[in-house]
Amino acid sequence: MSLLERGFPDSEFEARAAGAQALMADLGLDVLLVCTEPEVRYLTGFHTPFWQSPTRPWFVVLPAEGRPVAVIPSIGASAMNATWVNDIRTWPSPRPSDDGLGLLVETLAELVGQTSSNENVSIGLPMGHETHVRMPLADLDVLRERVAPARFVDATEVVRTLRMVKSDREIAKMAHICDVVSGAFEGLGELLSIGMTEREAFKSFRIDLLQRGADDVPYLVGASGPGFDDIIKQPSDRVIERGDLLMFDTGSLYDGYSSDFDRYVAFGRAGADAQRAYSTVWAATEAGLAAARPGATTSDLWRAMADVLDAGGSLGNSVGRLGHGLGMQVTEWPSNTADDNTVLQEGMVLTLEPGLTWAPGRMMVHEENFVVRADGPEMLSRRASSELPILK
Amino acid sequence: MSLLERGFPDSEFEARAAGAQALMADLGLDVLLVCTEPEVRYLTGFHTPFWQSPTRPWFVVLPAEGRPVAVIPSIGASAMNATWVNDIRTWPSPRPSDDGLGLLVETLAELVGQTSSNENVSIGLPMGHETHVRMPLADLDVLRERVAPARFVDATEVVRTLRMVKSDREIAKMAHICDVVSGAFEGLGELLSIGMTEREAFKSFRIDLLQRGADDVPYLVGASGPGFDDIIKQPSDRVIERGDLLMFDTGSLYDGYSSDFDRYVAFGRAGADAQRAYSTVWAATEAGLAAARPGATTSDLWRAMADVLDAGGSLGNSVGRLGHGLGMQVTEWPSNTADDNTVLQEGMVLTLEPGLTWAPGRMMVHEENFVVRADGPEMLSRRASSELPILK
Repeated sequence: MSLLERGFPDSEFEARAAGAQALMADLGLDVLLVCTEPEVRYLTGFHTPFWQSPTRPWFVVLPAEGRPVAVIPSIGASAMNATWVNDIRTWPSPRPSDDGLGLLVETLAELVGQTSSNENVSIGLPMGHETHVRMPLADLDVLRERVAPARFVDATEVVRTLRMVKSDREIAKMAHICDVVSGAFEGLGELLSIGMTEREAFKSFRIDLLQRGADDVPYLVGASGPGFDDIIKQPSDRVIERGDLLMFDTGSLYDGYSSDFDRYVAFGRAGADAQRAYSTVWAATEAGLAAARPGATTSDLWRAMADVLDAGGSLGNSVGRLGHGLGMQVTEWPSNTADDNTVLQEGMVLTLEPGLTWAPGRMMVHEENFVVRADGPEMLSRRASSELPILK
Repeated sequence: MSLLERGFPDSEFEARAAGAQALMADLGLDVLLVCTEPEVRYLTGFHTPFWQSPTRPWFVVLPAEGRPVAVIPSIGASAMNATWVNDIRTWPSPRPSDDGLGLLVETLAELVGQTSSNENVSIGLPMGHETHVRMPLADLDVLRERVAPARFVDATEVVRTLRMVKSDREIAKMAHICDVVSGAFEGLGELLSIGMTEREAFKSFRIDLLQRGADDVPYLVGASGPGFDDIIKQPSDRVIERGDLLMFDTGSLYDGYSSDFDRYVAFGRAGADAQRAYSTVWAATEAGLAAARPGATTSDLWRAMADVLDAGGSLGNSVGRLGHGLGMQVTEWPSNTADDNTVLQEGMVLTLEPGLTWAPGRMMVHEENFVVRADGPEMLSRRASSELPILK
């Protein structure tokens, strides 16, 4: 099985389960409960866009030993049966009177039964930063009562620790989608021109990404104009003019793994201030890359980039961080902030995302994707041009 | 402003806020707190795919009178400023030590201050079926403590009641995307052929939808084979053969509003059993449409369809319902089930989705989208062929 083959062999899921179970043991957790798409997919391989429907909750319980157990709506049984999971328990959801709670409580009781007396049972559930519980709050409150005296304990550290470091197969998927997106960005000059609307530009870029091999383009934002500070924007009917800047930022997918980087281009000409801002964020990225090695921290990356931005005359940055983790989601733990202090490890995939405000209401953000390696960063995105590209 | 113009005039948001405030008064709620994408977009118009990043929580508080107040990460300030909201409070997220909680507690206190003494304050928060709270559970628990003695009360009914009935402008957007998707389904014969892989078929269909005018195709599932029962599947490298069935089901978007219907086709020939199954789900849809009028219930729709499916020899259905509401999300309240009993009102947009198992491991699901109107259903999807289409 080549690294780029679709899906993962069972050995990948065995390693994930074993890793989670070791961390669970460290934290004194008897079982782990997850209910969000990335966590369920990470532990089982269950992969469907059906999560966009808010109707039904989905649960996966990882016992202290062995494979995860799926407690899911019957509509998902066939898809879950195609994964390495072999204990699949279903109910006919939607059933608001008991939308899986009874089955989940029963499953939890069974899976902790062998390990502890009920008084001391700890059920791990991610409750921390970057997580949420995807079930109705009224049902969650009932669930907490029904499992008592067992109690839910924060298990963010389990999924965070595991998911932050990527396997070679995960990295291969991300390298592929970053290659596809790099090609599309490098081809913007053939795709875009003065006189197009933002909406037309988005459409042609999205289709180009799919034609080049992206499975999907769930995240695409962008803007055009002499300058702008809304960097999470959807397209308008604004017509691209000579002298405009244009920014696209995309999280495109290959086999369930995401890219996340942006590019700026200018049309016809670019002002000296915009070119200077571009050079500053490009240089900040260089500084971040130079600092990226195992043992350094996300805060070291932040400081290396922030120093260059400050020296470049930044008027500020509304993003709140200078890059983040990348994987199944377009953003993941950790965050490159002044006080995040996550220690970098080999195999972490990160973005560097220095941004600055170069004039009131005008922001420029630069982004690259790379893997932390012992001998220095391995680029996943192809490094942007060191000067602001000017399209004809 | 034509009905199909992008976005909504402020009058639409004024009507939504007034509707919510009337329901809040009925339920004795002093303010309403929402934190999920559709609810925030419904009340404010804030529209970005940035919600795919799990890092930051977003809050909107609707007071008893006046416009909603946004309590959001600073990265969203510029985009929120383009909406009708004029009270925008931001913090530099991500900031795990206080990721908006302090600002939210302060805002809630201020907005309920005029209306009640703290002991009796009820803060509405959707907690029921089809909802979840999109913030870390640990933060939610702290929030509950910090607002005490004020308390959170389930406000599902507020958003459910309002969102179930669509305005003319919302319906115009959905009619447009359903028209685009209908055209793409009708053109499948020119797009697909024996010898393509499922992956190639998905890719060409997704690109075709974008070329025809879909803004995005976030939901696309499908399968091929002599029969299949995984109807939320992603494509494989399976090659389409003569005699295969193929199913595509898509929730495509126009201006933030979704279609949700599927189509089955056969390649070269189709077995009598598959054709009979198709005719049965088609006839069940006719029965559902005949029952769809204001005053009837979702359970009436369910019964009308279930009778036809039972008479057609259905071996079962794993979906759990026979259709649902449709709007900003690919599925919304209500559900067409035996005991849902939601009373249909003019302007509700629903899917009918009868499905049956026609042989072990072989399921067929048919789906159409329509508006409930006084003089009978107004189709949004163009009615499928009454017989299983057989492509060359």
